[in-house]
Amino acid sequence: METLNIAIFGCGTVGGGVAKIITEINDDLTSRANTKIVLKKIVELCPAKAAERFNLPLSLFCGDGNDLSGIEANQFIQDIISSKEIDLVVETIGGKSDFVYNLCLDILNSGKHLVTANKSLLAERGKTIFETAETRNLKIGFEAAVCGAIPIIKTIQESFTGDKILSVSGIMNGTSNYILTQMQNEKLEFSEALRMAQESGYAEADPLLDINGGDAGHKLILLIKLAFGIDVSKEDLSISGIENITKEDIDFASEIGAKIKLICYAKKVNGDIYATVRPMLVKNSNFLSEVSGTTNAVRINNKYSGIHFLVGKGAGSTETAMSIVSDIVFIARYGDKAQNIRAKEQRNLADARQFVFPYLITFHTGNFPGTTGFIATAIGKQEINIETVSHNRHSGEKAVFSVATMPCTLGQIENAIEEIRSEKPGMLLSEPKIMPILY
Amino acid sequence: METLNIAIFGCGTVGGGVAKIITEINDDLTSRANTKIVLKKIVELCPAKAAERFNLPLSLFCGDGNDLSGIEANQFIQDIISSKEIDLVVETIGGKSDFVYNLCLDILNSGKHLVTANKSLLAERGKTIFETAETRNLKIGFEAAVCGAIPIIKTIQESFTGDKILSVSGIMNGTSNYILTQMQNEKLEFSEALRMAQESGYAEADPLLDINGGDAGHKLILLIKLAFGIDVSKEDLSISGIENITKEDIDFASEIGAKIKLICYAKKVNGDIYATVRPMLVKNSNFLSEVSGTTNAVRINNKYSGIHFLVGKGAGSTETAMSIVSDIVFIARYGDKAQNIRAKEQRNLADARQFVFPYLITFHTGNFPGTTGFIATAIGKQEINIETVSHNRHSGEKAVFSVATMPCTLGQIENAIEEIRSEKPGMLLSEPKIMPILY
Repeated sequence: METLNIAIFGCGTVGGGVAKIITEINDDLTSRANTKIVLKKIVELCPAKAAERFNLPLSLFCGDGNDLSGIEANQFIQDIISSKEIDLVVETIGGKSDFVYNLCLDILNSGKHLVTANKSLLAERGKTIFETAETRNLKIGFEAAVCGAIPIIKTIQESFTGDKILSVSGIMNGTSNYILTQMQNEKLEFSEALRMAQESGYAEADPLLDINGGDAGHKLILLIKLAFGIDVSKEDLSISGIENITKEDIDFASEIGAKIKLICYAKKVNGDIYATVRPMLVKNSNFLSEVSGTTNAVRINNKYSGIHFLVGKGAGSTETAMSIVSDIVFIARYGDKAQNIRAKEQRNLADARQFVFPYLITFHTGNFPGTTGFIATAIGKQEINIETVSHNRHSGEKAVFSVATMPCTLGQIENAIEEIRSEKPGMLLSEPKIMPILY
Repeated sequence: METLNIAIFGCGTVGGGVAKIITEINDDLTSRANTKIVLKKIVELCPAKAAERFNLPLSLFCGDGNDLSGIEANQFIQDIISSKEIDLVVETIGGKSDFVYNLCLDILNSGKHLVTANKSLLAERGKTIFETAETRNLKIGFEAAVCGAIPIIKTIQESFTGDKILSVSGIMNGTSNYILTQMQNEKLEFSEALRMAQESGYAEADPLLDINGGDAGHKLILLIKLAFGIDVSKEDLSISGIENITKEDIDFASEIGAKIKLICYAKKVNGDIYATVRPMLVKNSNFLSEVSGTTNAVRINNKYSGIHFLVGKGAGSTETAMSIVSDIVFIARYGDKAQNIRAKEQRNLADARQFVFPYLITFHTGNFPGTTGFIATAIGKQEINIETVSHNRHSGEKAVFSVATMPCTLGQIENAIEEIRSEKPGMLLSEPKIMPILY
């Protein structure tokens, strides 16, 4: 039986989970892979802490289990990269720094397979890394980089090969979904729900990338690459987060039978790719509306096989680690026959203003007769059909109401708002909020 | 570039879908497989009809497009099996007859890979077929045999290899789920909903295997084999169908916040496998309760990565065919490295009477004071805690009510019923209905 020798760089939440699983079910893994799976070495700054947390023998760690300085750790990393003994490196240091970027290139250039959960690196700086793997006929496993435990990468790469993907969408950030679920269920404002999420450990002290859509955007970039074979840059992707969602927005959503979710969405229309990450009103008839708390879900619409949902844990230690370990088994089984990512084309996304959706537009206006009529007329002039106008919430001199449209473009709506502004300066007390409605 | 030459036996709903996809997206398939995918020949009794239905050239069919007698078709089949030119056969004739059984063995024994959607054959007579494939280092693709388009086979075989599966459950028969959904939504009795399903084409003229749990049982047998490496026989599996579900049962389910679904369930407890197919009351908090109409869903609970759901189309022409075509691409990519099913052990299932669930028991009794108390006491004597007792529906001399228990065994409940029968002959007007409650 052949042997696959593995090193892990970084033994935090995910790397530690990988070491734990490989240690606990090594016989199963070896039998499934028909290859001896051997965890040779772990490089970690604080081995004692990690060994205790994940119940690992200290002997697995470089440096005899002593805490390492950055310089010492780096020396061990260089030794492993130079070593002919290691076949595969699990990179669980994270981040998209030059250090990690160069490290991944060095791993591949030294002839080793790379398995990682590093979504920001692969989404923003992945091009050269994937190309290096392809040139050297090595494999990059990154199932763990998109929605943790959900096996969406292999599903697209190995199970939907007999189909054509029409669209990919989903809830791909657990923290923001937890916050929105709390806002919905407990009638909280965003800041209160965020604080609760931080107190419960579901949000980081610095939650920026989770709540501003950046993390979800990284996952969508990788899925677009896989599903449509297109490389897109983060700058080109239209992203907005959940920071400005209010209790009021959630009320308006309920009024039309919908819940607000941070949705990743990419669709191919006549060869153009429309893609966005933003809060949407998901109708209760859509399965995604049922996905609550930190759960993630991916929806794929295929030409021949219709709509699929994959639902599971988007984060967590052994949850994410499981995907890394399955990647290891896959590489052990299929070696250089394992497929790498297929993106061949660099392309700009279609203009988000041309994206056709039904939308909900919320207007804050002065409380004057004729306001609703004027706004509805301006919308109608842009050839937009109105589905419904909400109950108008008056409060002294102010009024708030929302308009649900039939499918139209964002551009049409912006034109209508432009007309309202120029014809009736002062009618709109703030920028109207525009959110797509997902059926 | 290498070539994979394919023959299809049987060009009905599924086989025709396979031919259609291979023809329509041949360039994509070839590029994904890095192997030229060539559909060489189709054997079908009525080529002209199939060619028209699936928009296929008549030249693909054996016999110059003329209708074939059974003897002629069989001769073409034998020619293909003897031919060295064909690398892979798609068997879409269906059924578990000796003819199809021997055909599959012949395909493998002639050195060809086999891809099939034939769940009854593989579940009931698969042992020798899988062993033959393993001995000859050939691959059997059967993704299409379990829940049509849902990629559950590859998910277990390739994506959950870094985990241990604790339980598998799900809704795996679209016809019965459609009937139950109609009963629920339209307040119909079973016979009315069945007739509607037949009229809408969602149920066959002979719907027996769909409604009696047999078809779902086939899928569960294959999943048990994959998830737990255990061969079980259909006779050993505790199966009951939906024929006896009434409007009243659905009402009692609603009263405890649940929907009735035909559930496949298999769980490993201390090395024993508990498995059953039967109607269960699925609590509205469980995602499976949201799966309506002909949609299928599989729920996997993993040791390291927690709960996963896969939801999709369980049947249909191109839906099922898509899974067959992806199997073809997989075999083309990985050849004899592709994994075969791993069941190594023949084992009896654990006694279904020992299966621990909360249960709902419905009693039809005479309308006398003291009945509820006597029954509740008999249940309590078996150390079963009662969760709730339903509103009692009186009607003249008869009464109906249901008792929801805390987790207990079926054996405990049967003992309680036995005591009621022997202490109060005549109290129970019919056999109480006992259904597990799934949280």
